[in-house]
Amino acid sequence: MAYFSAEEYKARLAGTRRAMQERDIDVLIVTDPSNMAWLTGYDGWSFYVHQAVIITHLHEPIWWGRAMDALGALRTVIMADDNVVGYDDTYVQNPQKHPMETLAALLNERGLAAGNIAVEMDNYYYSAAAHASLTHALPTNNFIDATGLVNWQRAIKSPAEIDCMRKAARIVEHMHRTIVERAEPGLRKNELVASIYAAAITGVDDCWGDYPSIVPLTPSGMDATAPHLTWDDSPLKKGECTFFEIAGVYRRYHCPQSRTLFLGEPPDKYKVAENAVMEAVEAGLTQAKPGNRCEDIANAFNQKLNQLGFEKDSRCGYSIGLSYPPDWGERTMSFRRDDQSILQAGMTFHFMPALWLDDGGVEVTEPILITDTGVECLCNTPRGLTIK
Amino acid sequence: MAYFSAEEYKARLAGTRRAMQERDIDVLIVTDPSNMAWLTGYDGWSFYVHQAVIITHLHEPIWWGRAMDALGALRTVIMADDNVVGYDDTYVQNPQKHPMETLAALLNERGLAAGNIAVEMDNYYYSAAAHASLTHALPTNNFIDATGLVNWQRAIKSPAEIDCMRKAARIVEHMHRTIVERAEPGLRKNELVASIYAAAITGVDDCWGDYPSIVPLTPSGMDATAPHLTWDDSPLKKGECTFFEIAGVYRRYHCPQSRTLFLGEPPDKYKVAENAVMEAVEAGLTQAKPGNRCEDIANAFNQKLNQLGFEKDSRCGYSIGLSYPPDWGERTMSFRRDDQSILQAGMTFHFMPALWLDDGGVEVTEPILITDTGVECLCNTPRGLTIK
Repeated sequence: MAYFSAEEYKARLAGTRRAMQERDIDVLIVTDPSNMAWLTGYDGWSFYVHQAVIITHLHEPIWWGRAMDALGALRTVIMADDNVVGYDDTYVQNPQKHPMETLAALLNERGLAAGNIAVEMDNYYYSAAAHASLTHALPTNNFIDATGLVNWQRAIKSPAEIDCMRKAARIVEHMHRTIVERAEPGLRKNELVASIYAAAITGVDDCWGDYPSIVPLTPSGMDATAPHLTWDDSPLKKGECTFFEIAGVYRRYHCPQSRTLFLGEPPDKYKVAENAVMEAVEAGLTQAKPGNRCEDIANAFNQKLNQLGFEKDSRCGYSIGLSYPPDWGERTMSFRRDDQSILQAGMTFHFMPALWLDDGGVEVTEPILITDTGVECLCNTPRGLTIK
Repeated sequence: MAYFSAEEYKARLAGTRRAMQERDIDVLIVTDPSNMAWLTGYDGWSFYVHQAVIITHLHEPIWWGRAMDALGALRTVIMADDNVVGYDDTYVQNPQKHPMETLAALLNERGLAAGNIAVEMDNYYYSAAAHASLTHALPTNNFIDATGLVNWQRAIKSPAEIDCMRKAARIVEHMHRTIVERAEPGLRKNELVASIYAAAITGVDDCWGDYPSIVPLTPSGMDATAPHLTWDDSPLKKGECTFFEIAGVYRRYHCPQSRTLFLGEPPDKYKVAENAVMEAVEAGLTQAKPGNRCEDIANAFNQKLNQLGFEKDSRCGYSIGLSYPPDWGERTMSFRRDDQSILQAGMTFHFMPALWLDDGGVEVTEPILITDTGVECLCNTPRGLTIK
């Protein structure tokens, strides 16, 4: 069974239907696993095959996917069993035919093929071939792009969701404590990552750990000049910096937080970069309040950073919440110039200031919750460079 | 630097170009991260933004992606630095514009926009929006679907790749030993998964563990009637069966293997199912040899299973090797009726017989290597139900 209440289910569906109505959408085909889970409770690692949730105005949502995964859907979704529909296994990764043909048949069968149909065009799990197959098999050629429609519904978290975020925050604090305890010169990076994973999944108290949508990113030295490299078995070295971009996860809700570790005494330029990031974070946080815009945080952050002699040309934050691989962001709001989304109480973000230097990187980031009056940092991990 | 040799790089490129020529492809846009890594050495968790490798007949491959990730590409790919091209961060997850516009510009700039262009239509990381943006921005509308073209080049593993597979096999054996040691009634499932992860990433000897493309699937009891559910903090129970679908991973090469654990004395029906799977596996393995076809294994397996009173209507295996999330399969060959792909020495598969019963599941699977004369099971994990 889904782990959110019947009331919340109804509210999520009602909000989504309102957004559909505003855009004159009769049938919404949801393929983003995060959106599928948020709307119906579906939770399984089955997004490597084609699957979807179909939302209409009058009927209960329909889960559609591989027959084998329909069994998992029966165990996790809120809808009645006859609204869980599986397709034959011969459609799986078979170049001779495409699973979307069965979705088109289902829409026809249920009388849903005639109206205005919307799809999430820019979603990992809605490939160019899926779209080609679906548009070929359906009579209409007036498809509406609803990328982000459901994601936006998720922007303001319910109290139950904020509780999940807080539990995820406890987990990521625990992960950072584990890093500080275990890291030392000579320890192989993969052994450290093994400890990080163990802390993440064991969790703390009643906060058991779910899997993160991005693996721990833990580059050292020159590899830390690039943001997204993963580990090998190289040993940690004295005089080297390593950043840890990691997330605690509770029931698919992500609380990411990054910290940077220096083994030994950091050179002055790291201290200068640390100070710049810390001051710029403070400047950004003063703008984090209801009624302000996403770009206000970015502009305040960048202005302070520039004053202190640094530049960062990438976004410095994004909205977070429920997520499935390969990304733990919600893919709606970003902290960057020109993002005029208005901050509202209940929104959660990863405020993600990172500076990449010529021989390493400094990441000191904060997951935040917009409150009625301002902002709350979800984690109590000590800010600043960790020196050991 | 890429961890395969210059000779292997040339051979991979030459094979891919031959396949392109056969289909009259001038420019191949590769967006599958596994194919990108196999062709160029690129390795990073950046596939949540649009990126690609561009293969032509005359020029060195080009890596194209987010500017921030170009730094990681410079550190991992074989090509010269001027064939690593990053796009501006404002294109990232911004509904106002699409990164594919910058890829189209790059193709124009390098004189590559005029010929026959091929894309991987059914790939997670080539969305419907990516295709719409690219086709809109380029003059040609004669796009060729090259889904699987590079994947097929990867089917026969080189000795260096088989070495990686063998290391991954050592890791998954270690993971299964860890499960048998740790599992006991009362242990919370997430704690067991934490130990599985720790074993996977720590690895064995010089086989350090890379991240798996699918998280450990470890359902118990009724949840084990469905194949792809993930864990929570429910305790293991006496009298309950749990299957473990997991993979060891070395440098992105996956060796998956599943085993089923029963805590306490299994009821007869589990023993009957176990026996059927064991006999059907043996029947399938006798057909696993060069010159036979994928379907020969499936047919032998299913025939034996049916004789013993069971039916499995899903495929019972697929090719494996280098992979990135969300799937550890290669998405080429499947062990199922009508798959007439010819087995050749050096191919690797996950022979994946699973039976889902009305109150649980039995998975006893073997990663296999086709040899010059027959087949080799890559793992020495004891076959059959684990009883503890």
